[in-house]
Amino acid sequence: MDIRFAKRTELMNSSVVRETLKLTARPDIISFAGGMPAPEVFPVEAMRAASDKVLTTAGPTALQYGPSDGYFPLREKIAARHRREGMACGPENILMINGSQQGLDLAGKLFLDPGDLVVCEDPTYTAALSTFRSYECGFLPIDTDDDGMILEDLEKKLAANPRAKLIYVIPTFQNPTGRTWSLERRKGLLALAERYGLPILEDNPYGELRYEGESLPALRSMDTRGNVVYMGSFSKILSPGIRLGWLAASPELLAMFETAKQGTDLQASTYIQMMVDTYLEDNDLDADIRKLNALYRSRRDLMLSVMEREFPKDSHWTHPHGGLFLWVTLPEGIDTAAIMPQVVERKVAYIPGHTFFAGGSTTNTLRLNFSNANEAHIVEGIRRLGQVLREQL
Amino acid sequence: MDIRFAKRTELMNSSVVRETLKLTARPDIISFAGGMPAPEVFPVEAMRAASDKVLTTAGPTALQYGPSDGYFPLREKIAARHRREGMACGPENILMINGSQQGLDLAGKLFLDPGDLVVCEDPTYTAALSTFRSYECGFLPIDTDDDGMILEDLEKKLAANPRAKLIYVIPTFQNPTGRTWSLERRKGLLALAERYGLPILEDNPYGELRYEGESLPALRSMDTRGNVVYMGSFSKILSPGIRLGWLAASPELLAMFETAKQGTDLQASTYIQMMVDTYLEDNDLDADIRKLNALYRSRRDLMLSVMEREFPKDSHWTHPHGGLFLWVTLPEGIDTAAIMPQVVERKVAYIPGHTFFAGGSTTNTLRLNFSNANEAHIVEGIRRLGQVLREQL
Repeated sequence: MDIRFAKRTELMNSSVVRETLKLTARPDIISFAGGMPAPEVFPVEAMRAASDKVLTTAGPTALQYGPSDGYFPLREKIAARHRREGMACGPENILMINGSQQGLDLAGKLFLDPGDLVVCEDPTYTAALSTFRSYECGFLPIDTDDDGMILEDLEKKLAANPRAKLIYVIPTFQNPTGRTWSLERRKGLLALAERYGLPILEDNPYGELRYEGESLPALRSMDTRGNVVYMGSFSKILSPGIRLGWLAASPELLAMFETAKQGTDLQASTYIQMMVDTYLEDNDLDADIRKLNALYRSRRDLMLSVMEREFPKDSHWTHPHGGLFLWVTLPEGIDTAAIMPQVVERKVAYIPGHTFFAGGSTTNTLRLNFSNANEAHIVEGIRRLGQVLREQL
Repeated sequence: MDIRFAKRTELMNSSVVRETLKLTARPDIISFAGGMPAPEVFPVEAMRAASDKVLTTAGPTALQYGPSDGYFPLREKIAARHRREGMACGPENILMINGSQQGLDLAGKLFLDPGDLVVCEDPTYTAALSTFRSYECGFLPIDTDDDGMILEDLEKKLAANPRAKLIYVIPTFQNPTGRTWSLERRKGLLALAERYGLPILEDNPYGELRYEGESLPALRSMDTRGNVVYMGSFSKILSPGIRLGWLAASPELLAMFETAKQGTDLQASTYIQMMVDTYLEDNDLDADIRKLNALYRSRRDLMLSVMEREFPKDSHWTHPHGGLFLWVTLPEGIDTAAIMPQVVERKVAYIPGHTFFAGGSTTNTLRLNFSNANEAHIVEGIRRLGQVLREQL
């Protein structure tokens, strides 16, 4: 090819997670790598009934173009769910998108010029880094602990970096660590964002997957300035295969996101939106989420207990109150990326921790998903993994 | 808001077409504005059966994440359709996207740096201009006649503009004019693109909607260098509400598009892809397209004959062999944008022609869609429109 590409393509890379998933998709591998929900609890029959009803009663509308901002009754239902959580929200605050991943891309398009900096947790969701990178930005990774970003580090770095342009955070059951920000840190972040005039992109795909403890308010619930763009998703609570998520923001910000969404792919699927709307109308999503949470809680607990037995002494890991992931720190000297071939040879898989760092990387961390493997596979997979890890010492 | 946005947002505008659609969505308006298929011929029952089968036999797979490049059996079926048309194509040449609109955005991301120029027909699809503009490019609009781009004008402008980076064309039943490029012009474009090392983005959403005449080969069928990226869509032949389209290109180019697709929204809906695959397996899409074509042909002919009677003398218009649009040139002095309030007051609508020009605009042209209004509405709407237009003289 003698074709010339845009400069940004030099910075674009295929998602390590997605590539690892290809490697580990072999059915004989017990994979803790992806962030996939358990397919055996998808409400398949309820979705089938919803599709049937939509196509039987409103087929021509469902298969036709629809408005760019989304299907109004669904936007109303999502807004009502947010109000129940304590967020001021109406349908005018909701824009439907193709899974929350699309929110990252639209935010990059609206906020990032080349050389701008995205403020993010270190570590953070690796595919967000890839998406933002395609807008030729840099990163301002902030140190974190069990309560979220360390505010002193955030303040120091914001003061020193006028090119900071956007703050990206996953405050609840963070990817990859599973940690949840404390209320105090949430308030502190909002205050600093306001002082520096920075929009916050609040990614919350896992918030409803809570297995213990009390819910904390979303950043957008406490935002008085309209600077928070909240990203929600049906991927983890209903189905990722339908590719449906939403943004919740002020009408002014949302109008800009709608323009960007139009240019990107016109609109989310009319049919999928009507199907989900009908599913919500005829079923109890909360009851389905409670079932999901009971399953994931027991898988988390099982994984934690087997790790206690099988993992090397001097390893430690997070004990997340929800979400899909555990974050493991191994004894110094074990390089989780370097030993992947041995790990895959034992027919087990995880994502090496270095993938998730925009700033200071580590070699001895890894992310484990506990939602997607069944109980027997969790026991066997963690046993195999423990063996490989202990052999490294 | 004290938030700072990216520079490109100054160039981003909401699609005039989509905004006009909002205005004209009132049920009492006879709209020839949109490019919507006729919902009454959507294969609703066949789609319902396909959804039912997918969810009954493979529900958990359909509702789960899937590969970024798309559902393999569907990619195979699309490739087979292309081979039948004479295009060398296998599943390795197909990437599934959310309608061909997404192909425009991904192409912008891969090819365009600020200040680069997109070579396009003048006039052309207005939402393509909006999408490319969000990549801070300029345009090199090429004069056109009934056979496509005028190659002398193209050659002159390519020679004079080294920032030309991408060629965007709709060679068959062009939007907005309905015109189809001759074979000679197609070959000439390929030769010039090769000489200047420019990729061609070939947009073909309407190609199968042919009401008379013989099919002409797609540019990608004649491309020996792998520089053509073909965009296909189910929107006009099956359903736009499912938001499904595809790219056909060399594996090298497609790998770059896949990376961009991953970053944008991970993948097209697994469920929608499996549903369409099942629809194709169990139904005869070609038979459905023949029905569609019979309907659209008669609507085109009806609109043309009523225009003959109702439109002002000295108006003229295209006689497209397929697609969805007629392009009308009115007597000088009628400003099709300025009279829109009077037009909408008569409860009828079109898209003013100036919208479609990146270069030299016109004030006396307009685009009419003939696929979406029924026969009675075509007669009545064109009568009303003729009245308003004749009053301008």
